[in-house]
Amino acid sequence: MPDTSSPDEHPTLGLDDVVHQRTRLGILSLLRDGASMQFGVLRETLRLTDGNLNRHLKVLVDAGLLESTREEGKGRTRTWVTITPAGRAALDAEIAALRALIGAHD
Amino acid sequence: MPDTSSPDEHPTLGLDDVVHQRTRLGILSLLRDGASMQFGVLRETLRLTDGNLNRHLKVLVDAGLLESTREEGKGRTRTWVTITPAGRAALDAEIAALRALIGAHD
Repeated sequence: MPDTSSPDEHPTLGLDDVVHQRTRLGILSLLRDGASMQFGVLRETLRLTDGNLNRHLKVLVDAGLLESTREEGKGRTRTWVTITPAGRAALDAEIAALRALIGAHD
Repeated sequence: MPDTSSPDEHPTLGLDDVVHQRTRLGILSLLRDGASMQFGVLRETLRLTDGNLNRHLKVLVDAGLLESTREEGKGRTRTWVTITPAGRAALDAEIAALRALIGAHD
């Protein structure tokens, strides 16, 4: 997901909807340091329903930005979510575009 | 459109989809200094189609964040778009939330 914007372009042209969407930006942001997080922790932190979180996770996993693994336990299954290198790069590009946008407002 | 987030909450919970959406954020950002802009200038700067720009302008006008006026000229009509005080406040709240998000990444 390369940043194809040039310095002449408006900073919002460098934003990618897959990453910029509010909830997905929250998910990537929480995972950015590389630690895995449990599904339930993401859901509570971002105040989502199971369905809503699942929908956004699917978009991010399909785009190769996250990986999700299931841990079979005693009678329950836990889902862990981790950012991929591509996800980290995409989030960094988003943050750079947001910095440019905010900089234009200073 | 008050900012209902608390300092304990993840910054993305303070984002409003009406303002945060990539194209609408671009429109509000271009209008933030209060000057009116012509429809065609917004369309070219943000590389939109007429239909796409119209759709996003309608969302922003319906939310009270923009005003649009039509200027009847010699054989052509020009549409001018201006940010409202509510639009300026909503954009400032968005920028504050983005600053908090970026600050968490520093």
